[in-house]
Amino acid sequence: MLLNSSLLTEAMQRQGFDALIATMPENVTYTSGFWAMSQWIRRGPQAYVLTPKPDAGEPAIITSTGIIDLAVESDVWVKDIYRYGSFFFDRNEGVELSAVDTRMLEILAKPHDPDPVSALVRAIKARKLENGRFGVDEIGITPDYWDKLATALPNATFVRASNAFRYARAIKTPEEISRLRRSAQIADLSIKAAFDAASEGITERELARIFHNTTINEGGEPVLGCVGCGTRSALTNVQPSDYALKQGDILRFDAGGRYRHYRADIARNAVLGEPSKKLRTYHRAICVGLDRAIEMIKPGVRVSDVFHAGVEAVRKEGIPHYDRSHIGHGIGLDGYDAPDIAANNDAVFEEGMVICVETPYYELGFGGLQVEDTMVVTRDGVDSFMLTSTELRVV
Amino acid sequence: MLLNSSLLTEAMQRQGFDALIATMPENVTYTSGFWAMSQWIRRGPQAYVLTPKPDAGEPAIITSTGIIDLAVESDVWVKDIYRYGSFFFDRNEGVELSAVDTRMLEILAKPHDPDPVSALVRAIKARKLENGRFGVDEIGITPDYWDKLATALPNATFVRASNAFRYARAIKTPEEISRLRRSAQIADLSIKAAFDAASEGITERELARIFHNTTINEGGEPVLGCVGCGTRSALTNVQPSDYALKQGDILRFDAGGRYRHYRADIARNAVLGEPSKKLRTYHRAICVGLDRAIEMIKPGVRVSDVFHAGVEAVRKEGIPHYDRSHIGHGIGLDGYDAPDIAANNDAVFEEGMVICVETPYYELGFGGLQVEDTMVVTRDGVDSFMLTSTELRVV
Repeated sequence: MLLNSSLLTEAMQRQGFDALIATMPENVTYTSGFWAMSQWIRRGPQAYVLTPKPDAGEPAIITSTGIIDLAVESDVWVKDIYRYGSFFFDRNEGVELSAVDTRMLEILAKPHDPDPVSALVRAIKARKLENGRFGVDEIGITPDYWDKLATALPNATFVRASNAFRYARAIKTPEEISRLRRSAQIADLSIKAAFDAASEGITERELARIFHNTTINEGGEPVLGCVGCGTRSALTNVQPSDYALKQGDILRFDAGGRYRHYRADIARNAVLGEPSKKLRTYHRAICVGLDRAIEMIKPGVRVSDVFHAGVEAVRKEGIPHYDRSHIGHGIGLDGYDAPDIAANNDAVFEEGMVICVETPYYELGFGGLQVEDTMVVTRDGVDSFMLTSTELRVV
Repeated sequence: MLLNSSLLTEAMQRQGFDALIATMPENVTYTSGFWAMSQWIRRGPQAYVLTPKPDAGEPAIITSTGIIDLAVESDVWVKDIYRYGSFFFDRNEGVELSAVDTRMLEILAKPHDPDPVSALVRAIKARKLENGRFGVDEIGITPDYWDKLATALPNATFVRASNAFRYARAIKTPEEISRLRRSAQIADLSIKAAFDAASEGITERELARIFHNTTINEGGEPVLGCVGCGTRSALTNVQPSDYALKQGDILRFDAGGRYRHYRADIARNAVLGEPSKKLRTYHRAICVGLDRAIEMIKPGVRVSDVFHAGVEAVRKEGIPHYDRSHIGHGIGLDGYDAPDIAANNDAVFEEGMVICVETPYYELGFGGLQVEDTMVVTRDGVDSFMLTSTELRVV
């Protein structure tokens, strides 16, 4: 299961909620397994998951009828489905139906509501929670639907609570760790494939195509593909252009897709031909900084201490003016989960966090260098997901 | 330019707005050309575009400092940039900088605000609009930031106005039509490549990989890939599995990526081996229905009339029980722009609308069939973007 239900319950209890309502795609998938496609690929379509506190009823999915086929997939562990809107399915009477088709017919036989909030209200009333206190993920529900919900249940209390989901999502379940490991490895293999093909004259677009095609062939989906060569590598979010690789150019990849909905975000660098002394020194410095930060990470260690140690090591090892606002972040269904590895973050690392640690450096007129690894925090350190080293690859 | 500024101005004037504030990724890109990456690939990151009414000042982009490299790209026509948050860039003093790097340094030399709403408020005050009436796209701004905005400008009025953007986006500019044409054609070529490779034993996943790899090789990005074979094709949003193609199986593709941020959404069907009589009859019926609907479309024709004619033709030509809630929709930066080609839509088609027209049919235990074409409404009809016919392809 994706959901860390004891943490979500803890967050609910701390804030005195009778139930949580997930509304953004990441939180809907997280609390049910339901990949509500229209909500993932567009803005506005509504899908919710109602998660009552322990002993206050079963969780429920609220979805448009048009995507109930995705709500009955075997990955979805929430079985009570409320649908809204009509959608026409016919049935071939002559044949036996598959398990999925049979489940669809069962759900289609139940009544549907005219809109998502009416369906949500029905789920709430079925659990006798109409006077309850609800934590609502405020990111995915539109303001009009929030108002409609508050009007429909005048004795209930609705509190913005996207942070409760973010809190639970920070500590990954074994299934999440397994998907995140594979996701990071797909990104790693995809960068390696692009570096393997790199030679004078290849364009950023061609490198990006090799990267994304490899991701697809390994079973992932493209999301992030910042690929910059030469001085363009200093543009943080550089999008691949027709710039063609020249001798001495840096190649910087900051990239990663999704695997079974879980994000990857890693970074590696190469150089065409012999690196300059400055490039060699600077790259070594960011690698040492990364290593220093990673060495320190274990449960109980303060996040800000790791930040300062990493930045200090880069400065000492060759980039005296190095500065950053963060050197990493959690990763999961969202590309930026907690914790943010930043100067002022007093949180501590905990076992089961999956984190990206990075020491990027951007110098306009020179180039950008960035090493970023993904790992899970274990009982006494970290377990890295990476297949390749951070070394500056000479191509 | 992507923006249909006369329509956006008209929407602003009709509702008496002094300015519009775009907050969701589609509307930010639409009103400025700025592809605010973090906002596109995550939920929560804030980027805005302030568009004052004519003679009330220049438009402005509000962005985090971390993505200003994307705000200075040549595609971005809004030049006044307000940034929030710090981000460290260094500068190689010894060399001359590119135009992009120079623009970055100019913007970095200006002060930054601590958060997106502070930057937005500064842009509003610089235009002396602090007592104005604002139409705010309510989809992308988080409720906390909406409240902060209202508190910061107590004499201003803020009205939910995502519909003003949707209204303008319905009629495409020549640049949008050109991107949408290419996007549709990439999807069409990608389905053709998958059908070309289809033979007994190939899995849905393998077919989807060919589809997505082709999209990438043609310069697009994967988004939608519903690929179902056999009776699984009746699952509306079927996600590719390890199901292997058998003799007599239907293959249904409902798929499309993005090209330069613009969506594709088309559908085609194939069959492995000779189609049954039922399959042939049903497929012909949905094709005739599609043709009938498309034939009728021209400026001034009522959308609901096209809906009824299309559905009626499918019924008459071989699926007497055929029913739908819509038979198509606009397409643009969002996969579902106006108009929704539905039974109760009293709107009329207008020149410059880019639309997907579709007649899908889903029968559990039999399969799903769907033909979907994309086209632009011209002065006296439509100009189709498609390269392949809707015929049932025998593989």
